[in-house]
Amino acid sequence: MKRPIGIFDSGIGGLTVLKEILNAMPGEDTIYLGDTARVPYGTKSAETVTRYSFENAKFLLKFDIKLLVVACNTASAYCLPQLKEELSIPVIGVIEPGAKKAVEVTKAKRIGIIGTEGTIRSGAYFDAIKTIDQSIAVFTQPCPLFVPLAEEGWTNNQIARMTAHAYLNDIKKQWIDALILGCTHYPLLKSIISDVMGNTVTLIDSGHETAAEVAKCLMEKNLLKTISSGESFHRFFVTDSPERFRQVGSRFMGTRLNNVELVNLED
Amino acid sequence: MKRPIGIFDSGIGGLTVLKEILNAMPGEDTIYLGDTARVPYGTKSAETVTRYSFENAKFLLKFDIKLLVVACNTASAYCLPQLKEELSIPVIGVIEPGAKKAVEVTKAKRIGIIGTEGTIRSGAYFDAIKTIDQSIAVFTQPCPLFVPLAEEGWTNNQIARMTAHAYLNDIKKQWIDALILGCTHYPLLKSIISDVMGNTVTLIDSGHETAAEVAKCLMEKNLLKTISSGESFHRFFVTDSPERFRQVGSRFMGTRLNNVELVNLED
Repeated sequence: MKRPIGIFDSGIGGLTVLKEILNAMPGEDTIYLGDTARVPYGTKSAETVTRYSFENAKFLLKFDIKLLVVACNTASAYCLPQLKEELSIPVIGVIEPGAKKAVEVTKAKRIGIIGTEGTIRSGAYFDAIKTIDQSIAVFTQPCPLFVPLAEEGWTNNQIARMTAHAYLNDIKKQWIDALILGCTHYPLLKSIISDVMGNTVTLIDSGHETAAEVAKCLMEKNLLKTISSGESFHRFFVTDSPERFRQVGSRFMGTRLNNVELVNLED
Repeated sequence: MKRPIGIFDSGIGGLTVLKEILNAMPGEDTIYLGDTARVPYGTKSAETVTRYSFENAKFLLKFDIKLLVVACNTASAYCLPQLKEELSIPVIGVIEPGAKKAVEVTKAKRIGIIGTEGTIRSGAYFDAIKTIDQSIAVFTQPCPLFVPLAEEGWTNNQIARMTAHAYLNDIKKQWIDALILGCTHYPLLKSIISDVMGNTVTLIDSGHETAAEVAKCLMEKNLLKTISSGESFHRFFVTDSPERFRQVGSRFMGTRLNNVELVNLED
C-alpha cells in the first residue's frame, strides 16, 4: 500500500503528532499541510475553522491519501464529525484518543485539560470524557502563552517555568491525576509541565495517543505500508513562509525538514 | 467635515493607535477594522500581507473615509507606498512617524527597534531611519512573546518583567538612547520596558507619533471635523470573534467597546 497518510494542522504544532506517527510506523509515507497563512485557529470561530479545515482536507485528498489526521485540536473540536461524514477515507482527530487515554489512566476520576482558548471554549475534550464516563470530574485551563514559548524555543527556562506555574496553579489544587496536553505545541513543554504538576499526575500527550489510533485503524483496514514498498517519503506544504516553518519546525520534529513547499489554498 | 477616519490593523493592537488618535482629536468619527480572522500578520510573507491590506482598505473605503491609518507595523512595513499610490485619500502608516521621532530624540545617534519578527525582518524602521540620517546606528530585537503577554493582560507581573529582560538585555548593552516600540501591542508593556531600559532611554510610541501626524495632515488639508458637526461615532469591524475583540479590546482602549460587528472580507 503506497498511499500516504495525510495530516493537517493550523501551523507547526501538528509536527509533534507527525513525529509520533513516524515513531509508531516508521515506514509510512506522509503529506503534511500546515496552514501557516491562517494560523492560529485557536482564537477563530467554529464556522471559520470548519471552512479552513475542509479546504485543507480537499488539498490533501489530491495526493490520494489513505487516512486523514486532523492534527489540530481546534479543528478536531469544531468539525471532526462533519469531516468524517463527508470524506470517504478514515479521519482521525486528536481529541478522542487523548480523552480515551485520560479516562483509562485516571483513578481519582479527576482529569485536567489544558489547551488554546478555542479548544477549551469548544468543550470538546470535556464532552468526549463525559461521553465515556459521566462521573468523571473535569477541570480546564487555557494557556495562551505556551504556544509562543514553544515556538521561541523557551521550553526549559525560568520564564517558561513561571508561566507554567501561573497557568497550572489552580488546576493543580483540584487533585487531578491525569492532565491532557490538549494542544500540539504543549509536548515541547512536557518536562516543565510535569515538574509543576508533580509525579502524581500523568500527562496525556494527545499526539502520542492519536498515533496509536492511526496504527490501529490502518492495521484493521489492512492499509499499513508493506516493507517491500520501498523507501518512504515525507512532503511538507505550508500556506505561508516556508523558511520559518523549516526553521521552527526542525525544532519540533527534532530533525531537519526538507521538501517544504508553498501552496495557495484560495486559488 | 463628517467623513470618518479609517483605521485597520491585523487585529486588536491597532486600538492603541486609535486611542492616541482620539486623545489628539477627540471629536473625530472613526471606523476601525481588525482583521482578526487572519491575525497575526507578523509571521506572514510580504505578498500575503499586501493582499490582505488592500482588502482591508477596500472595505474601509466603502465608508467614505477621509484618511486611512495603517495601524499595523507589518502592513506599514510591507505595502505603505503601494497603498499611497493606489488610493486617492491620504494614507498614514506607523513606521515613518516613529522613525522620525526617534531621530529627533537621539543624541547618542544610537536607536533601538523592537517589534514582531515580520516588522524587524522587513527592515522598514531601519530604512526609514537611515533615509533621514545615514550616520545613526540602529539595533533591532524581535520580541514575539510581548503580543500574547499584552493580550493576556500580563503587563506588569514577574513573567512580563523576566521576558522583557530576556529580550532587551542585548539591545540595552548597545548604549542606545531611543527605543522604538515598533508593534502596536507594546505600549501596554511600556512601564516594564521602561524599567528594564532605564531612564536614559526614551521610549518612542509609534501610535502616539502617528496620531500627531494624522492631526497635522487633516489640519493642512482642512479636513478636521468642525465642532458643529455634532456627536462623534466609532464603529468597529472584525473578521472573526467579536466577543474576544470586545473583551481584550476594552483593556487596550481603556473603555468599553460597543458596536463591534462581524464582517467577511472574502465575499
